[in-house]
Amino acid sequence: MALAKGSLVMVEYESRAKGGEGTIETTRGAGGAHSARLVAVGEGWVLRGLDTALAGMSVGERRSIEVPPEGAYGARDPKKVRMIPLRKLGEDAEKVTVGDEIDLDGRKGTIRFIGSGRVQVDYNHRHAGKAIVYEMHVVRELTGDAERASAIVDRGMEGIGRGTAAALSGETLEVSIPESLFRAEGLQAAKQSIRRDMFRFVPAVRRLRFVEEHLAAPPKPTATRAEFLAAGASGDAGQARKAPGAAAGLRPPGQYRAP
Amino acid sequence: MALAKGSLVMVEYESRAKGGEGTIETTRGAGGAHSARLVAVGEGWVLRGLDTALAGMSVGERRSIEVPPEGAYGARDPKKVRMIPLRKLGEDAEKVTVGDEIDLDGRKGTIRFIGSGRVQVDYNHRHAGKAIVYEMHVVRELTGDAERASAIVDRGMEGIGRGTAAALSGETLEVSIPESLFRAEGLQAAKQSIRRDMFRFVPAVRRLRFVEEHLAAPPKPTATRAEFLAAGASGDAGQARKAPGAAAGLRPPGQYRAP
Repeated sequence: MALAKGSLVMVEYESRAKGGEGTIETTRGAGGAHSARLVAVGEGWVLRGLDTALAGMSVGERRSIEVPPEGAYGARDPKKVRMIPLRKLGEDAEKVTVGDEIDLDGRKGTIRFIGSGRVQVDYNHRHAGKAIVYEMHVVRELTGDAERASAIVDRGMEGIGRGTAAALSGETLEVSIPESLFRAEGLQAAKQSIRRDMFRFVPAVRRLRFVEEHLAAPPKPTATRAEFLAAGASGDAGQARKAPGAAAGLRPPGQYRAP
Repeated sequence: MALAKGSLVMVEYESRAKGGEGTIETTRGAGGAHSARLVAVGEGWVLRGLDTALAGMSVGERRSIEVPPEGAYGARDPKKVRMIPLRKLGEDAEKVTVGDEIDLDGRKGTIRFIGSGRVQVDYNHRHAGKAIVYEMHVVRELTGDAERASAIVDRGMEGIGRGTAAALSGETLEVSIPESLFRAEGLQAAKQSIRRDMFRFVPAVRRLRFVEEHLAAPPKPTATRAEFLAAGASGDAGQARKAPGAAAGLRPPGQYRAP
Protein backbone atom coordinates (compact mmCIF):
# COMPACT_ATOMS: atom_id res chain seq x y z
CA MET A 1 0.00 0.00 0.00
CA ALA A 2 1.41 3.36 -1.04
CA LEU A 3 2.24 5.91 1.62
CA ALA A 4 -0.10 8.82 2.23
CA LYS A 5 1.11 12.40 2.16
CA GLY A 6 2.14 13.30 5.68
CA SER A 7 2.97 9.72 6.63
CA LEU A 8 5.92 9.59 8.96
CA VAL A 9 8.34 6.88 7.91
CA MET A 10 11.76 5.79 9.04
CA VAL A 11 13.96 5.33 5.99
CA GLU A 12 17.50 4.21 5.23
CA TYR A 13 19.13 5.34 2.04
CA GLU A 14 22.26 6.10 0.13
CA SER A 15 22.52 8.39 -2.87
CA ARG A 16 25.04 8.99 -5.64
CA ALA A 17 25.07 10.82 -8.94
CA LYS A 18 24.00 8.51 -11.77
CA GLY A 19 27.11 6.98 -13.30
CA GLY A 20 29.21 8.47 -10.51
CA GLU A 21 30.97 6.75 -7.68
CA GLY A 22 31.00 8.95 -4.60
CA THR A 23 28.20 8.89 -2.07
CA ILE A 24 26.26 12.15 -1.90
CA GLU A 25 24.08 11.36 1.09
CA THR A 26 23.77 8.36 3.35
CA THR A 27 21.99 7.37 6.53
CA ARG A 28 24.99 5.21 7.44
CA GLY A 29 26.91 6.45 10.42
CA ALA A 30 30.66 6.44 10.98
CA GLY A 31 30.50 2.75 11.93
CA GLY A 32 28.96 1.83 8.59
CA ALA A 33 25.59 0.79 10.02
CA HIS A 34 22.41 2.55 8.93
CA SER A 35 20.64 4.73 11.42
CA ALA A 36 17.15 5.21 10.06
CA ARG A 37 16.01 8.77 9.45
CA LEU A 38 12.56 10.29 9.84
CA VAL A 39 10.83 11.60 6.72
CA ALA A 40 7.35 13.07 6.39
CA VAL A 41 6.23 11.84 2.99
CA GLY A 42 5.37 14.51 0.41
CA GLU A 43 6.27 17.39 2.72
CA GLY A 44 9.48 18.60 1.14
CA TRP A 45 11.78 17.11 3.75
CA VAL A 46 13.74 15.44 0.92
CA LEU A 47 14.40 16.35 -2.72
CA ARG A 48 11.20 16.84 -4.65
CA GLY A 49 11.70 13.93 -7.03
CA LEU A 50 12.54 11.62 -4.17
CA ASP A 51 9.49 12.75 -2.23
CA THR A 52 7.24 11.84 -5.15
CA ALA A 53 8.84 8.42 -5.58
CA LEU A 54 8.64 7.73 -1.85
CA ALA A 55 4.89 8.26 -1.90
CA GLY A 56 4.63 5.30 -4.28
CA MET A 57 6.54 2.94 -1.99
CA SER A 58 5.25 0.61 0.71
CA VAL A 59 6.46 -0.09 4.20
CA GLY A 60 9.30 -2.62 4.15
CA GLU A 61 10.03 -2.04 0.47
CA ARG A 62 13.52 -1.50 -0.95
CA ARG A 63 13.76 0.33 -4.25
CA SER A 64 16.33 1.98 -6.45
CA ILE A 65 14.99 5.43 -7.35
CA GLU A 66 16.40 7.58 -10.12
CA VAL A 67 15.60 11.25 -9.67
CA PRO A 68 16.12 13.39 -12.79
CA PRO A 69 17.95 16.71 -12.38
CA GLU A 70 14.69 18.68 -12.37
CA GLY A 71 13.55 16.79 -9.28
CA ALA A 72 16.99 17.02 -7.65
CA TYR A 73 19.49 19.88 -7.86
CA GLY A 74 18.16 21.42 -11.08
CA ALA A 75 19.53 21.69 -14.61
CA ARG A 76 22.93 23.21 -15.18
CA ASP A 77 22.76 26.85 -16.27
CA PRO A 78 25.81 27.83 -18.39
CA LYS A 79 25.18 31.48 -17.50
CA LYS A 80 26.08 30.65 -13.91
CA VAL A 81 29.71 30.07 -14.95
CA ARG A 82 31.77 33.26 -14.65
CA MET A 83 35.32 34.39 -15.21
CA ILE A 84 36.44 36.73 -12.46
CA PRO A 85 39.77 38.39 -11.62
CA LEU A 86 41.79 36.25 -9.22
CA ARG A 87 42.33 39.27 -6.94
CA LYS A 88 38.61 39.26 -6.10
CA LEU A 89 39.33 36.20 -3.95
CA GLY A 90 41.44 38.38 -1.66
CA GLU A 91 43.68 36.40 0.65
CA ASP A 92 42.39 33.12 -0.77
CA ALA A 93 43.79 33.93 -4.24
CA GLU A 94 47.11 32.23 -3.41
CA LYS A 95 45.57 29.11 -1.97
CA VAL A 96 42.69 27.98 -4.19
CA THR A 97 42.96 25.06 -6.56
CA VAL A 98 40.61 23.65 -9.19
CA GLY A 99 37.67 21.86 -7.57
CA ASP A 100 37.62 24.00 -4.42
CA GLU A 101 34.30 25.31 -3.19
CA ILE A 102 34.39 29.00 -2.33
CA ASP A 103 31.94 31.48 -0.91
CA LEU A 104 31.94 34.71 -2.92
CA ASP A 105 29.54 37.60 -2.30
CA GLY A 106 27.35 35.23 -0.32
CA ARG A 107 27.07 32.66 -3.12
CA LYS A 108 28.71 29.25 -3.16
CA GLY A 109 30.70 28.36 -6.24
CA THR A 110 33.21 25.82 -7.46
CA ILE A 111 36.55 26.72 -9.03
CA ARG A 112 36.74 25.19 -12.51
CA PHE A 113 39.86 26.83 -13.97
CA ILE A 114 42.68 29.11 -12.84
CA GLY A 115 45.04 31.02 -15.16
CA SER A 116 46.48 34.37 -16.26
CA GLY A 117 45.11 36.23 -13.25
CA ARG A 118 41.61 34.96 -13.69
CA VAL A 119 39.54 32.20 -12.23
CA GLN A 120 36.48 30.47 -13.59
CA VAL A 121 33.80 30.01 -10.94
CA ASP A 122 30.79 27.76 -11.45
CA TYR A 123 27.85 28.93 -9.37
CA ASN A 124 25.70 25.97 -10.36
CA HIS A 125 24.97 23.56 -7.50
CA ARG A 126 27.69 20.92 -7.34
CA HIS A 127 25.16 18.29 -8.37
CA ALA A 128 23.16 20.38 -10.85
CA GLY A 129 22.43 18.63 -14.13
CA LYS A 130 22.87 15.20 -12.61
CA ALA A 131 20.35 12.45 -12.12
CA ILE A 132 20.62 11.20 -8.57
CA VAL A 133 20.16 7.55 -7.73
CA TYR A 134 18.84 6.58 -4.32
CA GLU A 135 18.95 3.11 -2.83
CA MET A 136 15.93 3.52 -0.62
CA HIS A 137 14.53 1.32 2.13
CA VAL A 138 11.32 2.24 3.91
CA VAL A 139 11.98 0.57 7.23
CA ARG A 140 8.68 1.28 8.96
CA GLU A 141 5.85 3.71 9.33
CA LEU A 142 5.24 5.48 12.62
CA THR A 143 1.57 5.32 13.47
CA GLY A 144 1.30 5.72 17.24
CA ASP A 145 1.08 9.29 18.52
CA ALA A 146 3.79 8.71 21.13
CA GLU A 147 6.31 7.32 18.69
CA ARG A 148 5.51 9.97 16.09
CA ALA A 149 6.00 12.64 18.73
CA SER A 150 9.28 11.12 19.91
CA ALA A 151 10.65 10.86 16.39
CA ILE A 152 9.86 14.52 15.71
CA VAL A 153 11.62 15.56 18.90
CA ASP A 154 14.66 13.47 18.01
CA ARG A 155 14.81 14.96 14.53
CA GLY A 156 14.51 18.49 15.88
CA MET A 157 17.31 17.91 18.39
CA GLU A 158 19.64 16.35 15.81
CA GLY A 159 22.79 18.40 15.76
CA ILE A 160 22.05 19.93 19.17
CA GLY A 161 22.86 16.92 21.32
CA ARG A 162 21.58 13.71 22.82
CA GLY A 163 19.55 12.85 25.89
CA THR A 164 16.22 14.57 25.25
CA ALA A 165 13.19 12.52 26.33
CA ALA A 166 9.55 12.93 25.34
CA ALA A 167 6.51 11.63 27.22
CA LEU A 168 2.93 11.87 25.98
CA SER A 169 0.14 12.08 28.50
CA GLY A 170 -3.30 12.89 27.17
CA GLU A 171 -2.95 15.94 24.94
CA THR A 172 0.29 17.03 26.58
CA LEU A 173 3.73 16.15 25.34
CA GLU A 174 6.45 16.87 27.86
CA VAL A 175 9.91 17.14 26.41
CA SER A 176 12.73 16.99 28.97
CA ILE A 177 15.94 18.69 27.96
CA PRO A 178 19.00 17.24 29.70
CA GLU A 179 21.11 19.65 31.72
CA SER A 180 24.05 19.15 29.35
CA LEU A 181 22.05 20.93 26.64
CA PHE A 182 20.64 23.85 28.63
CA ARG A 183 23.14 26.18 27.02
CA ALA A 184 23.58 24.42 23.68
CA GLU A 185 23.68 26.71 20.69
CA GLY A 186 20.55 26.47 18.57
CA LEU A 187 18.43 24.98 21.37
CA GLN A 188 15.69 27.62 21.21
CA ALA A 189 15.52 27.39 17.41
CA ALA A 190 15.27 23.60 17.68
CA LYS A 191 12.31 23.94 20.06
CA GLN A 192 10.54 26.19 17.55
CA SER A 193 11.11 23.70 14.77
CA ILE A 194 9.85 20.82 16.93
CA ARG A 195 6.79 22.90 17.78
CA ARG A 196 6.01 23.52 14.12
CA ASP A 197 6.34 19.87 13.10
CA MET A 198 4.62 18.53 16.21
CA PHE A 199 1.37 20.44 15.77
CA ARG A 200 1.37 19.63 12.06
CA PHE A 201 2.11 15.91 12.19
CA VAL A 202 0.83 14.84 15.60
CA PRO A 203 -2.54 16.56 15.98
CA ALA A 204 -3.17 14.53 19.16
CA VAL A 205 -0.61 16.80 20.84
CA ARG A 206 -2.32 20.06 21.75
CA ARG A 207 0.13 21.18 24.40
CA LEU A 208 3.89 20.95 24.05
CA ARG A 209 5.98 21.57 27.15
CA PHE A 210 9.74 21.87 27.07
CA VAL A 211 11.06 21.27 30.56
CA GLU A 212 14.50 22.03 31.93
CA GLU A 213 14.72 20.50 35.37
CA HIS A 214 17.30 21.28 38.02
CA LEU A 215 17.62 19.19 41.17
CA ALA A 216 18.99 20.43 44.44
CA ALA A 217 22.20 18.68 45.45
CA PRO A 218 21.55 15.90 47.96
CA PRO A 219 22.03 17.17 51.51
CA LYS A 220 25.54 16.66 52.85
CA PRO A 221 25.84 13.86 55.38
CA THR A 222 25.70 15.41 58.82
CA ALA A 223 25.99 14.10 62.36
CA THR A 224 25.78 15.80 65.71
CA ARG A 225 29.00 16.22 67.62
CA ALA A 226 27.83 13.58 70.07
CA GLU A 227 27.04 11.11 67.28
CA PHE A 228 30.38 11.88 65.71
CA LEU A 229 32.23 11.13 68.93
CA ALA A 230 30.12 8.05 69.58
CA ALA A 231 30.98 6.81 66.09
CA GLY A 232 34.49 6.17 67.33
CA ALA A 233 36.51 9.34 66.76
CA SER A 234 39.40 9.18 69.22
CA GLY A 235 38.63 11.37 72.22
CA ASP A 236 39.77 14.80 71.05
CA ALA A 237 37.03 16.37 68.98
CA GLY A 238 39.21 19.38 68.25
CA GLN A 239 41.73 17.15 66.57
CA ALA A 240 38.96 15.34 64.81
CA ARG A 241 38.04 18.55 62.95
CA LYS A 242 41.46 19.19 61.45
CA ALA A 243 41.94 19.51 57.73
CA PRO A 244 42.17 16.37 55.57
CA GLY A 245 45.60 14.85 55.26
CA ALA A 246 46.37 15.35 58.92
CA ALA A 247 46.37 12.67 61.63
CA ALA A 248 43.84 9.84 62.02
CA GLY A 249 40.30 10.67 63.05
CA LEU A 250 40.15 13.71 60.75
CA ARG A 251 37.14 14.69 58.75
CA PRO A 252 36.64 17.44 56.18
CA PRO A 253 34.66 20.34 57.66
CA GLY A 254 30.90 20.33 57.54
CA GLN A 255 30.44 16.66 58.24
CA TYR A 256 28.96 17.15 61.63
CA ARG A 257 26.90 19.89 63.09
CA ALA A 258 26.67 21.11 66.64
CA PRO A 259 24.02 19.24 68.66
CA MET B 1 14.34 42.55 65.74
CA ALA B 2 17.47 42.60 63.62
CA LEU B 3 17.48 40.68 60.36
CA ALA B 4 19.30 37.36 60.15
CA LYS B 5 21.93 36.68 57.50
CA GLY B 6 20.16 35.18 54.51
CA SER B 7 16.85 36.88 55.31
CA LEU B 8 15.03 37.85 52.17
CA VAL B 9 13.66 41.34 52.45
CA MET B 10 11.92 43.72 50.09
CA VAL B 11 13.55 47.11 50.38
CA GLU B 12 13.07 50.57 48.93
CA TYR B 13 15.99 52.95 48.87
CA GLU B 14 17.68 55.89 47.30
CA SER B 15 21.38 56.66 47.47
CA ARG B 16 23.58 59.68 46.82
CA ALA B 17 27.15 60.66 47.52
CA LYS B 18 27.42 62.35 50.92
CA GLY B 19 27.18 66.09 50.35
CA GLY B 20 26.29 65.51 46.70
CA GLU B 21 23.01 66.05 44.97
CA GLY B 22 22.54 63.47 42.23
CA THR B 23 20.91 60.12 42.89
CA ILE B 24 23.28 57.18 42.44
CA GLU B 25 20.79 54.38 42.83
CA THR B 26 17.08 54.30 43.43
CA THR B 27 14.28 51.78 43.56
CA ARG B 28 11.94 54.41 42.15
CA GLY B 29 10.73 53.66 38.65
CA ALA B 30 10.17 56.09 35.82
CA GLY B 31 6.83 57.12 37.33
CA GLY B 32 8.49 58.17 40.60
CA ALA B 33 6.92 55.44 42.72
CA HIS B 34 9.11 52.93 44.53
CA SER B 35 9.11 49.37 43.33
CA ALA B 36 10.55 47.33 46.17
CA ARG B 37 13.64 45.29 45.44
CA LEU B 38 14.65 41.90 46.80
CA VAL B 39 17.81 41.70 48.92
CA ALA B 40 19.27 38.69 50.72
CA VAL B 41 20.73 40.22 53.86
CA GLY B 42 24.48 39.79 54.38
CA GLU B 43 24.98 37.94 51.10
CA GLY B 44 26.79 40.57 49.08
CA TRP B 45 23.83 41.53 46.94
CA VAL B 46 24.42 45.17 47.90
CA LEU B 47 27.52 47.19 48.84
CA ARG B 48 29.34 45.64 51.79
CA GLY B 49 28.78 48.56 54.17
CA LEU B 50 25.11 48.69 53.31
CA ASP B 51 24.78 44.95 53.82
CA THR B 52 26.17 45.26 57.35
CA ALA B 53 23.89 48.15 58.23
CA LEU B 54 20.87 46.34 56.81
CA ALA B 55 21.46 43.40 59.15
CA GLY B 56 20.90 45.78 62.06
CA MET B 57 17.53 47.01 60.81
CA SER B 58 14.06 45.68 61.52
CA VAL B 59 11.13 45.04 59.26
CA GLY B 60 9.19 48.23 58.64
CA GLU B 61 12.07 50.45 59.72
CA ARG B 62 13.27 53.49 57.77
CA ARG B 63 16.83 54.60 58.35
CA SER B 64 19.41 56.90 56.85
CA ILE B 65 22.61 54.89 56.44
CA GLU B 66 26.01 56.41 55.75
CA VAL B 67 28.42 53.99 54.18
CA PRO B 68 32.09 55.06 54.29
CA PRO B 69 34.17 54.68 51.10
CA GLU B 70 35.75 51.45 52.35
CA GLY B 71 32.32 49.82 52.55
CA ALA B 72 31.23 51.32 49.23
CA TYR B 73 33.33 51.97 46.11
CA GLY B 74 36.73 52.05 47.87
CA ALA B 75 39.24 54.79 48.52
CA ARG B 76 40.56 56.87 45.64
CA ASP B 77 43.95 55.69 44.37
CA PRO B 78 45.96 58.57 42.79
CA LYS B 79 48.03 56.00 40.88
CA LYS B 80 44.90 55.10 38.90
CA VAL B 81 44.97 58.51 37.19
CA ARG B 82 46.95 58.41 33.95
CA MET B 83 47.92 60.75 31.14
CA ILE B 84 47.68 59.04 27.77
CA PRO B 85 48.07 60.24 24.17
CA LEU B 86 44.75 61.34 22.71
CA ARG B 87 45.33 59.17 19.63
CA LYS B 88 44.98 56.03 21.81
CA LEU B 89 41.24 56.75 21.87
CA GLY B 90 41.12 56.07 18.12
CA GLU B 91 37.96 57.35 16.45
CA ASP B 92 36.64 58.65 19.75
CA ALA B 93 39.53 61.12 20.08
CA GLU B 94 37.55 63.83 18.27
CA LYS B 95 34.39 63.33 20.28
CA VAL B 96 35.28 62.97 23.95
CA THR B 97 34.76 65.76 26.47
CA VAL B 98 35.68 66.08 30.12
CA GLY B 99 33.48 63.93 32.32
CA ASP B 100 32.87 61.24 29.68
CA GLU B 101 33.17 57.61 30.69
CA ILE B 102 35.27 55.58 28.29
CA ASP B 103 36.24 51.97 27.98
CA LEU B 104 39.94 51.60 27.25
CA ASP B 105 41.75 48.26 27.09
CA GLY B 106 38.81 46.70 28.90
CA ARG B 107 38.89 49.13 31.83
CA LYS B 108 36.35 51.85 32.49
CA GLY B 109 37.70 55.33 33.11
CA THR B 110 36.53 58.91 33.29
CA ILE B 111 38.06 61.75 31.26
CA ARG B 112 39.34 64.44 33.66
CA PHE B 113 41.33 66.69 31.35
CA ILE B 114 42.01 67.09 27.62
CA GLY B 115 44.82 69.17 26.12
CA SER B 116 47.94 69.30 23.92
CA GLY B 117 47.27 65.89 22.39
CA ARG B 118 46.90 64.17 25.71
CA VAL B 119 44.03 63.14 27.88
CA GLN B 120 43.90 62.45 31.61
CA VAL B 121 41.93 59.32 32.41
CA ASP B 122 40.84 58.46 35.93
CA TYR B 123 40.44 54.72 36.34
CA ASN B 124 39.10 55.02 39.86
CA HIS B 125 35.45 54.10 40.21
CA ARG B 126 33.29 57.13 39.63
CA HIS B 127 32.21 57.05 43.28
CA ALA B 128 35.55 55.98 44.80
CA GLY B 129 36.54 57.97 47.89
CA LYS B 130 32.97 59.01 48.60
CA ALA B 131 30.76 58.16 51.52
CA ILE B 132 27.40 57.04 50.20
CA VAL B 133 24.18 57.88 51.98
CA TYR B 134 21.22 55.56 51.66
CA GLU B 135 17.65 56.39 52.62
CA MET B 136 16.60 52.83 53.35
CA HIS B 137 13.18 51.36 54.03
CA VAL B 138 12.82 47.67 54.87
CA VAL B 139 9.30 47.14 53.56
CA ARG B 140 8.82 43.53 54.59
CA GLU B 141 10.47 40.20 55.04
CA LEU B 142 9.57 37.26 52.87
CA THR B 143 9.03 34.21 55.03
CA GLY B 144 6.78 31.86 53.07
CA ASP B 145 8.54 29.45 50.69
CA ALA B 146 6.23 30.30 47.81
CA GLU B 147 6.75 34.04 48.07
CA ARG B 148 10.50 33.64 48.58
CA ALA B 149 10.65 31.44 45.50
CA SER B 150 8.59 33.87 43.44
CA ALA B 151 10.72 36.82 44.44
CA ILE B 152 13.91 34.99 43.45
CA VAL B 153 12.44 34.14 40.07
CA ASP B 154 11.38 37.75 39.53
CA ARG B 155 14.82 39.01 40.45
CA GLY B 156 16.52 36.52 38.12
CA MET B 157 14.28 37.52 35.23
CA GLU B 158 14.79 41.23 35.76
CA GLY B 159 16.19 42.67 32.59
CA ILE B 160 15.03 39.67 30.55
CA GLY B 161 11.33 40.44 30.43
CA ARG B 162 8.01 40.17 32.19
CA GLY B 163 5.38 37.48 32.43
CA THR B 164 7.23 34.62 34.15
CA ALA B 165 5.11 32.76 36.72
CA ALA B 166 6.24 30.43 39.50
CA ALA B 167 4.13 27.80 41.27
CA LEU B 168 5.30 25.75 44.24
CA SER B 169 3.85 22.30 44.74
CA GLY B 170 5.50 20.13 47.36
CA GLU B 171 9.25 20.21 46.69
CA THR B 172 8.79 21.23 43.07
CA LEU B 173 8.83 24.77 41.82
CA GLU B 174 7.55 25.12 38.29
CA VAL B 175 8.59 28.29 36.53
CA SER B 176 6.62 29.07 33.37
CA ILE B 177 8.42 31.18 30.81
CA PRO B 178 6.05 33.16 28.58
CA GLU B 179 6.34 32.60 24.85
CA SER B 180 7.46 36.18 24.32
CA LEU B 181 10.70 35.36 26.16
CA PHE B 182 11.54 32.00 24.57
CA ARG B 183 14.25 33.63 22.50
CA ALA B 184 15.22 36.46 24.83
CA GLU B 185 18.92 37.08 25.12
CA GLY B 186 20.31 35.99 28.47
CA LEU B 187 17.41 33.64 29.23
CA GLN B 188 19.56 30.57 29.83
CA ALA B 189 21.97 32.53 32.02
CA ALA B 190 19.02 33.88 34.03
CA LYS B 191 17.78 30.34 34.63
CA GLN B 192 21.20 29.37 35.98
CA SER B 193 21.25 32.32 38.31
CA ILE B 194 17.72 31.56 39.56
CA ARG B 195 18.80 27.97 40.13
CA ARG B 196 21.76 29.05 42.25
CA ASP B 197 19.76 31.43 44.43
CA MET B 198 16.75 29.15 44.70
CA PHE B 199 18.59 26.18 46.15
CA ARG B 200 20.51 28.48 48.49
CA PHE B 201 17.66 30.57 49.85
CA VAL B 202 14.62 28.33 49.51
CA PRO B 203 15.76 24.91 50.71
CA ALA B 204 12.16 23.69 50.55
CA VAL B 205 12.57 23.69 46.77
CA ARG B 206 14.40 20.51 45.77
CA ARG B 207 13.32 20.43 42.13
CA LEU B 208 13.22 23.45 39.87
CA ARG B 209 11.49 23.07 36.54
CA PHE B 210 11.61 25.73 33.84
CA VAL B 211 8.75 25.15 31.46
CA GLU B 212 8.22 26.61 28.02
CA GLU B 213 4.76 25.68 26.89
CA HIS B 214 3.41 25.86 23.36
CA LEU B 215 -0.27 25.38 22.63
CA ALA B 216 -1.67 24.15 19.36
CA ALA B 217 -3.78 26.73 17.57
CA PRO B 218 -7.50 26.14 18.16
CA PRO B 219 -8.94 24.00 15.37
CA LYS B 220 -10.39 25.99 12.48
CA PRO B 221 -14.18 26.02 12.38
CA THR B 222 -15.26 23.36 9.93
CA ALA B 223 -18.59 22.02 8.84
CA THR B 224 -19.59 19.54 6.22
CA ARG B 225 -21.32 21.02 3.23
CA ALA B 226 -24.53 19.31 4.34
CA GLU B 227 -24.28 20.72 7.89
CA PHE B 228 -23.52 24.09 6.44
CA LEU B 229 -26.65 24.00 4.30
CA ALA B 230 -28.76 22.63 7.15
CA ALA B 231 -27.55 25.46 9.37
CA GLY B 232 -29.78 27.79 7.39
CA ALA B 233 -27.59 29.32 4.74
CA SER B 234 -30.03 30.93 2.38
CA GLY B 235 -30.51 28.45 -0.40
CA ASP B 236 -27.32 29.34 -2.15
CA ALA B 237 -24.55 27.85 -0.05
CA GLY B 238 -22.04 29.40 -2.37
CA GLN B 239 -23.25 32.88 -1.66
CA ALA B 240 -23.36 32.40 2.09
CA ARG B 241 -19.69 31.47 2.01
CA LYS B 242 -18.52 34.41 -0.03
CA ALA B 243 -15.40 36.27 0.89
CA PRO B 244 -16.20 39.90 1.45
CA GLY B 245 -16.16 41.75 -1.82
CA ALA B 246 -15.81 38.69 -4.05
CA ALA B 247 -18.28 37.45 -6.67
CA ALA B 248 -21.08 35.16 -5.59
CA GLY B 249 -20.10 31.57 -4.88
CA LEU B 250 -16.46 32.29 -4.01
CA ARG B 251 -14.98 31.52 -0.61
CA PRO B 252 -11.53 31.26 0.74
CA PRO B 253 -10.52 27.60 0.73
CA GLY B 254 -10.76 25.47 3.83
CA GLN B 255 -14.02 26.74 5.27
CA TYR B 256 -15.84 23.51 4.79
CA ARG B 257 -14.77 19.99 4.16
CA ALA B 258 -16.39 17.39 1.94
CA PRO B 259 -18.79 15.16 3.81
